[in-house]
Amino acid sequence: MRKLKMGMIGGGKNAFIGAIHRIAANMDGLVELHCGAFSSNPEISKESGKGLFLPEAKCYDSYEKMIAIESQLPQDQKMDFVTIVTPNFTHFAPAMMALNHGFHVLIDKPMTLSLDEAKQLQQKVKETGLILCLTHTYSGYPMVKQARKMVADNDFGKIRKVIVEYTQGWLSSLLESKENKQALWRTDPAKSGISGCMGDIGTHAAHLAEYISGLKIAQLCADINIVVEGRKLDDDGNVLLKFDNGANGILVATQIATGEENGLKIKIYGEKGGLEWHQMEPNSLIIKWSDAPTQIYRTGNGYLSNISMANSRTPSGHPEGYLEAFANLYKNFALTLSFKLEGKEPTQEMLDFPSVDDGVRGMAFIENVIASGKSDQKWFDFKI
Amino acid sequence: MRKLKMGMIGGGKNAFIGAIHRIAANMDGLVELHCGAFSSNPEISKESGKGLFLPEAKCYDSYEKMIAIESQLPQDQKMDFVTIVTPNFTHFAPAMMALNHGFHVLIDKPMTLSLDEAKQLQQKVKETGLILCLTHTYSGYPMVKQARKMVADNDFGKIRKVIVEYTQGWLSSLLESKENKQALWRTDPAKSGISGCMGDIGTHAAHLAEYISGLKIAQLCADINIVVEGRKLDDDGNVLLKFDNGANGILVATQIATGEENGLKIKIYGEKGGLEWHQMEPNSLIIKWSDAPTQIYRTGNGYLSNISMANSRTPSGHPEGYLEAFANLYKNFALTLSFKLEGKEPTQEMLDFPSVDDGVRGMAFIENVIASGKSDQKWFDFKI
Amino acid sequence: MRKLKMGMIGGGKNAFIGAIHRIAANMDGLVELHCGAFSSNPEISKESGKGLFLPEAKCYDSYEKMIAIESQLPQDQKMDFVTIVTPNFTHFAPAMMALNHGFHVLIDKPMTLSLDEAKQLQQKVKETGLILCLTHTYSGYPMVKQARKMVADNDFGKIRKVIVEYTQGWLSSLLESKENKQALWRTDPAKSGISGCMGDIGTHAAHLAEYISGLKIAQLCADINIVVEGRKLDDDGNVLLKFDNGANGILVATQIATGEENGLKIKIYGEKGGLEWHQMEPNSLIIKWSDAPTQIYRTGNGYLSNISMANSRTPSGHPEGYLEAFANLYKNFALTLSFKLEGKEPTQEMLDFPSVDDGVRGMAFIENVIASGKSDQKWFDFKI
Amino acid sequence: MRKLKMGMIGGGKNAFIGAIHRIAANMDGLVELHCGAFSSNPEISKESGKGLFLPEAKCYDSYEKMIAIESQLPQDQKMDFVTIVTPNFTHFAPAMMALNHGFHVLIDKPMTLSLDEAKQLQQKVKETGLILCLTHTYSGYPMVKQARKMVADNDFGKIRKVIVEYTQGWLSSLLESKENKQALWRTDPAKSGISGCMGDIGTHAAHLAEYISGLKIAQLCADINIVVEGRKLDDDGNVLLKFDNGANGILVATQIATGEENGLKIKIYGEKGGLEWHQMEPNSLIIKWSDAPTQIYRTGNGYLSNISMANSRTPSGHPEGYLEAFANLYKNFALTLSFKLEGKEPTQEMLDFPSVDDGVRGMAFIENVIASGKSDQKWFDFKI
Repeated sequence: MRKLKMGMIGGGKNAFIGAIHRIAANMDGLVELHCGAFSSNPEISKESGKGLFLPEAKCYDSYEKMIAIESQLPQDQKMDFVTIVTPNFTHFAPAMMALNHGFHVLIDKPMTLSLDEAKQLQQKVKETGLILCLTHTYSGYPMVKQARKMVADNDFGKIRKVIVEYTQGWLSSLLESKENKQALWRTDPAKSGISGCMGDIGTHAAHLAEYISGLKIAQLCADINIVVEGRKLDDDGNVLLKFDNGANGILVATQIATGEENGLKIKIYGEKGGLEWHQMEPNSLIIKWSDAPTQIYRTGNGYLSNISMANSRTPSGHPEGYLEAFANLYKNFALTLSFKLEGKEPTQEMLDFPSVDDGVRGMAFIENVIASGKSDQKWFDFKI
Repeated sequence: MRKLKMGMIGGGKNAFIGAIHRIAANMDGLVELHCGAFSSNPEISKESGKGLFLPEAKCYDSYEKMIAIESQLPQDQKMDFVTIVTPNFTHFAPAMMALNHGFHVLIDKPMTLSLDEAKQLQQKVKETGLILCLTHTYSGYPMVKQARKMVADNDFGKIRKVIVEYTQGWLSSLLESKENKQALWRTDPAKSGISGCMGDIGTHAAHLAEYISGLKIAQLCADINIVVEGRKLDDDGNVLLKFDNGANGILVATQIATGEENGLKIKIYGEKGGLEWHQMEPNSLIIKWSDAPTQIYRTGNGYLSNISMANSRTPSGHPEGYLEAFANLYKNFALTLSFKLEGKEPTQEMLDFPSVDDGVRGMAFIENVIASGKSDQKWFDFKI
Repeated sequence: MRKLKMGMIGGGKNAFIGAIHRIAANMDGLVELHCGAFSSNPEISKESGKGLFLPEAKCYDSYEKMIAIESQLPQDQKMDFVTIVTPNFTHFAPAMMALNHGFHVLIDKPMTLSLDEAKQLQQKVKETGLILCLTHTYSGYPMVKQARKMVADNDFGKIRKVIVEYTQGWLSSLLESKENKQALWRTDPAKSGISGCMGDIGTHAAHLAEYISGLKIAQLCADINIVVEGRKLDDDGNVLLKFDNGANGILVATQIATGEENGLKIKIYGEKGGLEWHQMEPNSLIIKWSDAPTQIYRTGNGYLSNISMANSRTPSGHPEGYLEAFANLYKNFALTLSFKLEGKEPTQEMLDFPSVDDGVRGMAFIENVIASGKSDQKWFDFKI
Repeated sequence: MRKLKMGMIGGGKNAFIGAIHRIAANMDGLVELHCGAFSSNPEISKESGKGLFLPEAKCYDSYEKMIAIESQLPQDQKMDFVTIVTPNFTHFAPAMMALNHGFHVLIDKPMTLSLDEAKQLQQKVKETGLILCLTHTYSGYPMVKQARKMVADNDFGKIRKVIVEYTQGWLSSLLESKENKQALWRTDPAKSGISGCMGDIGTHAAHLAEYISGLKIAQLCADINIVVEGRKLDDDGNVLLKFDNGANGILVATQIATGEENGLKIKIYGEKGGLEWHQMEPNSLIIKWSDAPTQIYRTGNGYLSNISMANSRTPSGHPEGYLEAFANLYKNFALTLSFKLEGKEPTQEMLDFPSVDDGVRGMAFIENVIASGKSDQKWFDFKI
């Protein structure tokens, strides 16, 4: 094994998510930043790369140049994969170009601007055999993996109900009118796609619900709202759900919940028990039983499943957080990639990261939920 | 002022809610148990009354006899009001009879078996000028009253979103097949009415949402479920809400949330801030701001509103609970009644208990939500 | 059985703890207020009794008159017991007089002004066979009883460590200089005794530690402080403890912990597990294991011990609080007394209330801890 | 600026804290692993380095060789600093050798085996002008820094009381008899020094108390225990404290609190308010006021101080944890070092990491607390 070489697209100075990606990539020492096209502005790209201790030659003017040039380098000098940390509207083209030039891809969610683009990427991944990892960060938490394992092990019996909510308050005023960079692109249909809140955080909630429950959303009925006057995309929504096993559910995603930080919470109930997890206290998994005291499972303890322990870095009681969950995506992707490069079969644990298929489901969720929100029809089939 | 004389209908030995009512009535020393028709079985009624230290003459064979006989007694020897703590199907008749004989009424929710009955009671109360108090217990908590006051004072700006959930797990198996008394009548359409879960706890959730927010539900879209096989009434539901000011909301009520005890929780968001309250930790009210730290308002502190302080009995840090909230209904009802009996005008604080109008809205909620659940139409107007 | 007749000493208008006692006494309908000497001021006593719906003849000018007159009444017309809710300096005399006239006693803690007085009461109780109940309220909580039961059942193995803290902030300024009634007597050596904080709340903490652990404090080393300038009695202290089985411990009691309400918390650790309980969230008992997830035991659930269930009035999830804990003392005292009056043997569950022996230990705690605080000697034997 | 080159001493395969250090060093991309003497066993050192993608030449057989050889390399090829992650007994010698060869030092706590060694290092640091950073990790948390800032800003008035407790349960059985590597050296006087628990975690608690409060421990009275039979060093202790401003305090450190993970908690009270922080929920800082609702300050919010924001990497609601706190030590050390290397003056924010002076105080704490524990004298002056 060797360190994998990462080429970053986006993530220049002051970009929020680019810095997060670099921390996540750095954390386990499996990946090194090899090159970048950090901005569509070549000056900013250079300056950004310099601040990251990259040689100037590895700070490209554009992702097109980066992919084209790197693809011509000898194997031991070129990047292994690209990481795409740009706004949604610059996901598809660089991802497709990277795949076409033989590079693996790690990409922010939602994967593309449309379901159609997502399907094209899916097809391309299938054809090329390359790996695409999608950053549904919250599935990287050790206690989320523990939850998924316990559901899969039938600890709770048949799943009957899922309540997932994702509450944020940062868009409770018209922040995009105040030149806030994050708000600007996320509320702009040209850059974000047909959905704001549902695309940005609703997809996380939907993915988490399906990831833990092992179920698929089969039908939905959505109330999609623009609450803040003057906004162009939805900033709030409530969705009734039916899952493929008959379970019902509810998904709330809102960015106008004034005073909320990043309140992703999920509760799942089965015949024999239930679980509850809060992203803001991620090291506790609350397990409920019909006839015994509630239990608090905690990250890093010996009683946890292997998959949970494999995604944890500290002893119990030494809290892990968002960056470690993010780093788990990078770690599992990197291990999978390293094994593939060495001709070895990755383990199931390594392969436990969101894939292009999750990206397709995410885009389908957006299109279905927005269509339902606009319709007078009560129940919509979840179509892909 | 003098102690008010209470006649109890229902609440015999082993009845859950009757004992609760007596504790609530006892707590402040404003009410004394004067007589009772504790059971439709005269023997049980007698035995129950004896255990409560009532003379045998005051243990009636039936509520009909009790009302008829007591109404003939001199003013200083007869009961002042009846409290009705029977299952739903025995609410309307005794309430109507009591009102017709000049007795005030305190009654369990939901008020009747149908909206039509509820309207008849409303009409009768209007005609007679008698007082009817409905036991939406949760509105009796001091921090619920603080929340309502802060919304009314516009502390949070215009209300935009309401998330209320009421999760219980006690009906996650077919308990009614095991001779469980509480489960038997609550899942029996003849005794409970057209709804199980929505009538039993959904009405509490709806009342709490309207009580705190000061808004009225204007439209709803319901997913109503019978989750446990063999059950005759709904045990679960999720409802999309629109309020009369345009705010949106979500109401979840379920009795199949395995491992949940009595999880009534509400979150309300306005333009400037939000609030959160959990019935199981009732002495904390969480107040959220867009640009300042979250605050924890706590029962009994000097910074609270008068209405909150008036409904609290202990110094801060000495927790109050469900029984005190229940007792607040009795206390405010009793003070209102005493003032009326003395020809005085009750204060706004005294009048702060759920009335026959709330009972009508509750029955309308049940009828609307069940109709919506059966329909393919997305949005239902909330009709009364 | 019949309702027991209570005579109250103290607890006039605006007295905090008198109102609490009446609620506790009322709650279960086992006790009725029969008479009172509510104040050393006869006018206030009368006015107070009137507000409680007592006939004027039952509102006595002094406790001496009340005891003397009531003791002359026929058995079915006189009070059964006195409840003493005055400041510390008026505990001993009325208690002794009541016992001497054949009345049972319920009395606030600390029991007396000195250990010597406490021993005299103990001797008198022994001689007369009358019952004395001391209001260590916190031992009345159902989850405290559950904790005690689990320790007694050896669920945690040998107990090794006890951490108890009782933090309040209400005396963080010189409140007694502002005519605050509660502060005035509690900080006045003539009315409170040789200790302020340790007598007022330290005794509660010590009692709780011994009650749950089943151990006795054998040695202590105290740091006793007057933090607020101008105060006459201790308002803060930290105490190292050794228990009779060799376990060590720490007791913190402070009334200058600014911003704290009534923060009584206890943690106990044994060889196999541990427990944690917080008075301000009294319905949860946190149980910790060396090799399994932490469990949250909750009031009212079927998995609890009989003793815990017997001291609970609501279904799980319907929170009980301080008043219910207080009422448990009255209930168990009243049941014990009723059984004795009927010549029956009270059950162990009924007898589970603090007695005159606890009162003696409490006074010994005060005297030992204050002596230790003044001494340069490190360890003090706990002497009675 | 450039990446700093780190030479690691200790931290071979399976070493717990070495892996933690590497993650912390990696996180911000400011430091690269340059070389290592990962084990006293040269084979293990080589193997460990290989797993970290180091060239074989940079995997040294011993720290002596590493320091000697690296010191001879040209400036741009040699390490900038050593990080010492070995058990306590191998701290002093490599640190002194590194300083003598001109290398900066980052070192685990407690700094040395004895106070005398600590003073020698302090003297050497003073002479050489080199930088020594001590890993009191918990002072790296953003909310700890916020707490310290608010105390320094006099938000709470004069500090009156400090309650700090550090509870772990992992040594509640004789784990060292089961070949547990961590337990073996930590309970062995030859490797750990004169103290087990107080050295390992008591020093963290003491440092945290002094760091946040800005006070110094002036006197102490300790109860130091070996609870688990057969153990050679203390595994538990309770300490009464007096601070230099007259405030009192209590410090509990225990490793036999069965079922506890890593329960470091601190409460500090001043005249006007108080604060509370729990390491296991590190992103919340609870602020209490005498006359206003408790506030929850949360990591990453705009209302925080600059020093808190500078030590945070994610938006609010995206939890940070232990590794980020650890990385803050590395980041601030690295920025300070980089500035020095470039001849610039580090900012106060950069200089905010524990230094050799903290190391000396930590060793003094150990020697004083152990001496006090053995003595019959009540109060001990804190001597350095």
